[in-house]
Order: sequence, then structure tokens, then C-alpha cells
Amino acid sequence: MHSFSQLSAVFEQRFNKRHFPEQPVKLYDASQYILGIGGKRVRPVCVLMGNELFGDIHEDAYEVATAVELFHNFTLVHDDIMDKAPMRRGMETVHTRYGESTALLAGDVMLVKSYEFINLIQPKYKKAILSLFNTTASAVCEGQQLDMNFESEPQIEFDDYANMIALKTSVLLGASLQMGAIIGGAGLGNQQHIYAFGKMLGMAFQVQDDYLDAFGDPAKFGKLAGGDILANKKTFLLLHAMDSATAEQKKSLDHWYGQTNLDENGKKQKVEEVIHIFKNCGADNWAGELKEKYYQQALDRLEDIAVVSARKKELADLANYLMNRDK
Amino acid sequence: MHSFSQLSAVFEQRFNKRHFPEQPVKLYDASQYILGIGGKRVRPVCVLMGNELFGDIHEDAYEVATAVELFHNFTLVHDDIMDKAPMRRGMETVHTRYGESTALLAGDVMLVKSYEFINLIQPKYKKAILSLFNTTASAVCEGQQLDMNFESEPQIEFDDYANMIALKTSVLLGASLQMGAIIGGAGLGNQQHIYAFGKMLGMAFQVQDDYLDAFGDPAKFGKLAGGDILANKKTFLLLHAMDSATAEQKKSLDHWYGQTNLDENGKKQKVEEVIHIFKNCGADNWAGELKEKYYQQALDRLEDIAVVSARKKELADLANYLMNRDK
Repeated sequence: MHSFSQLSAVFEQRFNKRHFPEQPVKLYDASQYILGIGGKRVRPVCVLMGNELFGDIHEDAYEVATAVELFHNFTLVHDDIMDKAPMRRGMETVHTRYGESTALLAGDVMLVKSYEFINLIQPKYKKAILSLFNTTASAVCEGQQLDMNFESEPQIEFDDYANMIALKTSVLLGASLQMGAIIGGAGLGNQQHIYAFGKMLGMAFQVQDDYLDAFGDPAKFGKLAGGDILANKKTFLLLHAMDSATAEQKKSLDHWYGQTNLDENGKKQKVEEVIHIFKNCGADNWAGELKEKYYQQALDRLEDIAVVSARKKELADLANYLMNRDK
Repeated sequence: MHSFSQLSAVFEQRFNKRHFPEQPVKLYDASQYILGIGGKRVRPVCVLMGNELFGDIHEDAYEVATAVELFHNFTLVHDDIMDKAPMRRGMETVHTRYGESTALLAGDVMLVKSYEFINLIQPKYKKAILSLFNTTASAVCEGQQLDMNFESEPQIEFDDYANMIALKTSVLLGASLQMGAIIGGAGLGNQQHIYAFGKMLGMAFQVQDDYLDAFGDPAKFGKLAGGDILANKKTFLLLHAMDSATAEQKKSLDHWYGQTNLDENGKKQKVEEVIHIFKNCGADNWAGELKEKYYQQALDRLEDIAVVSARKKELADLANYLMNRDK
């Protein structure tokens, strides 16, 4: 059994090469560029860990892990176009660097490329993997559409918001683990448990992400404090605050979330005041409890998987690590 | 054996239904909308005809045909975004009607959906079909990138231009026929012949398309006469004219192809003068000969396929029909 960081290093070594032809240069340089921006490679490593829970890691797991990472990067490129995001992880986004049309196409060829890796696996599991991959890919697109729809909706129900987050971010974590489990020969019951473990972990992770944006230590978090607030982004915190705010607090939130072109002083004031309201509404404690609830649900489903506990240690450690990160 | 129009009717009947879930409404209505704009369904019918050349049409051919048509429509949606095209076949384009972000996502889910249909075919041919589908999909994206690159290049070599057209439009015709042939159990040699037949037919078709834009009867062609000229689009005709024009003609072409915001009179004058130069350069005759050359190459490869001639009649009729259309 290997830890997340061991498998992350192994995957990175295999993945860190050019995946695309040379020509047309601009198209494939754009595709390759986003892969170099990096990230923790959580999703592909989940494929490997999902496999190893049930047996030795099969070569197929590396193919599927690569497909998943390519797919994830495809979504980043297209999401950044839709969000008109200039930067990602301190680097120019693909459309900023290569133009929107090339970024759009670069995303398309990355999605196609991901299916080439799926095609490399043994026939025995290809139908199940391809089916789960497709279902998940559609779900992620649906989540992105709902996220865009919500931008212009004044009031969003918690369940609708949680469903959007599940589609946009959590199901891919669950599916990555499940695809690994399929390759490991897991039965349907165990597949469902590990999928749910990943999905719930993804939900907890997103709550944590929203929490850290407002209450984390910016020096450690590596992002602008209150970045979500300045972008007027709907988050778990905002949803709760809008739900439990007094009339006066609600009026203030409405005011601040209507602001877009603030100067540096205005931005500072906005972040401070919004965070102040969040705290007064108890959004910080509420988010902590919500995260804990999802985390516990994830651990329960990990518990349900019918393999000896000792084998589950690395996945439990991963969950624990993701939950206690401060960045 | 069935004719193109018979199979087109059969395919249309199967294809003409909602292919997407209800929710999120905007996303999937956008995907469904483009399918309703129609077209001759040439590519999916080529899958069916490629299959029937070698035996009875297998259910798998309908799945692959559906995948191919979904893929083709995905490219239309994304190309229209890149080209900022307001209309297609007299209807609003998807991004005009639903916004760019939703159109982008609608294209993405259509591409994913096409792989769901590929996943329905029997395991025996899945690897070969998926591989060819992926190679073709990448080629089409490459062709679109080259097309965009060429927009800003003053001088393009014929071979480079022909290669772009092959990637952007012709290989999908060839691959559609080949995927049908694979399902029909064709050997590799026959697969290569039918692919080349389709690809060369696609080249001839594109030359014809460029020719009709300038020299066709607008009433029959159903498009604005000189639409390519007004859009400053590089075509086979323009390439030849730039190659063989006198200094004065070249200067005039450069002038007209630098114009974008002409009034109705200016547009009329531009189309007339450019067509006049095309004629004086002999671009009309040259294009006629080029089309004939590609057409003959296509027929030669059809001839090479090792099945009795009688079975080839429907494909020969299709080629003849596509070559003699005046719209």
C-alpha cells in the first residue's frame, strides 16, 4: 500500500511529459501549457488509490488516471473561458495567453485525448469505465451550467446549491476512486461505497475551501483573502449568511455583493465587512459543522467497504489530510 | 442495398428525438436546438453505407452513425463561437440564442454524448472504432486551428491549404465510411480504400462548395452569392487567383479582402469585382478541374475495394449526386 504523496510522485513522474503532437504548435502548446500549471493531482491519485484498495495497481489504472487528469484540465480551460478568469495559480490562464478560440479548441482536444487513454485499458472493464467516465463528464458540465445559472438568481436553496457543488466538483472525486476500484475488481456494492466516500469527501473539501477563503490565513492559503467575496461568488458561507442574516445585515450583503469596480480601499472594506457579517451570522461555526458532517458521512462509507481495515488506512489518511489542510 | 436518400430517411427517423435529459434546461435545450437545424446527415449515412457495402446493416452502425452526427454538431457549435457566426442555415446559431458560455458547454456535452453511443457497440470492434473516432476528432480540431491560423497569413501554399481542408472536413467523411466498414467486418485494405474514397470525395465536395459560392445560382444554392468573398474567407478559388493574378489584379484583391464594413452597394461591387478577377484568372475552370481530379481519385479508390461492383453502385451514386448538386 502506498500513501497519497508516494502515488502523487509516481503519477507526476509519468504524467510530466508532452502528451500532444507538435503541430499545430499553437493548439497543442496551449493544451500542454495548462498541464504544466500543476495542482495536487488529487483525482488521478484517487484512481490509483481506489485500485490499490482492492489489489496491486494495474497498468490500466495509470491510463485511467491520465484520462481523469486530462479531463479535469479540460474543464479548467473551458471554465476559465466562461468565468473570464485572467489567472490560475499565479499563471496566465490558457485563453489569456493563447486567445479564446485556441483555448476552446485546446480544451476540446484534451477531452478527446482523455478518451484515447480510456481506450488503452483491457476490454474487460472498458464498458463500465467508459460509461462512468461519460456520466461523470456530463455531470461536471451540468454543474458548471447550474453554477452559471445561480449567478443571476437572488435566492438559492441549500439543496440546490449542494447539488450543483456535487455535480461540479464532488462526483469526479467519487468516480475517480470508483474507476480505480473497478480496475481492482471490486464488486458493485464496494464500488458504490467508495464512490460515495469520494463524493462526500469532495463536499467536505468544498466547504473547507469556502471557509478558508474567508477565514483562512492568506499567507498559507496562497490565494487572496476573500477572493470569493470580491468576485461576488456564491459560497456555502454566503448561502448560510443570507439565510440567517438580520434585515440590516442582509441589506449590507446585498449592497456589497452588488459592487464590482471597487478601488483597493473599497475592496479591503468589502472583505472586512462581509467577513464580519459572516461571523455575526455564525457562518464560520456552521461551515465547520457542515464540513464535519460531510467528512463523517465520507468516513462512514469508507467503513462500509468490505475490505480489511488495515487496507483503508491510506484513504483515511488522505481524507484526514484534506480536511486539516490550512491552504 | 439502400440508396443514400433511403438511409437518410431511416436515420433521420431514429435520430429525430430528444437525445438529452431535461435538466439543466438551458444547457440541454441548447444541445438539442442545433440538432434540429438539420442538414443532409451525410456523415451518419456514410457510416450506414460503409457498413452495407460489406453486409447487412448491423445495429452498431446506427449507434456509430448517431455518435458521428453528434460529434459533427459539436464541431458546428464550437466553430460558430470561434467564427462569431450569427446565423446557420437561416437560424440563429447556438451562442446567439443561448449565450457563448452555454453554447460552449452544450458543445462539450454533445461530444461526451457521442462517446456514450460508441460505448453501446459490441466489444469486438470497440477499440478500433474508438481509436478511429479519436484520431478523427483530433484531426478536425487541428483543421479548425489551421483555418484560424491561415486567417492572418497573407500567403498560403496550396498543399497547406488542402491539408487544412482535409483535416477540417474530409477526414470525417472518410472515417465515417471506414467505421461502417469496420462494423461490416471489412479487412484493413478495404478499410483504407473506403476511407480514401470518402476523404477524396470530401475534398471534391469542398472545391465544389467554394465554386458554387462564387459561380452558383444563389436561388438554388440557398446561400448569399459571394458569402465567402464578403467574409474575406480563404477558399480554393482565392488561393488560385492570388497565385495567378497579375500585379494589378492582386492589388485589387488585396484591396477588397481588406474591406469589412461595406454598405449594400459596396458589398455588391466587391462580389462582382472579385468574381470578375476570379474569372479572368481562370479560377472557375481551374476549380472545375481540381474537383474532377479529386472526384476521379475518389472513384479510383472505390474501384479498389474488393467487393463485387454491383454492391458499389449506391456509393458511386452518392458521389455522383454530391458532385452534380447545384446547391
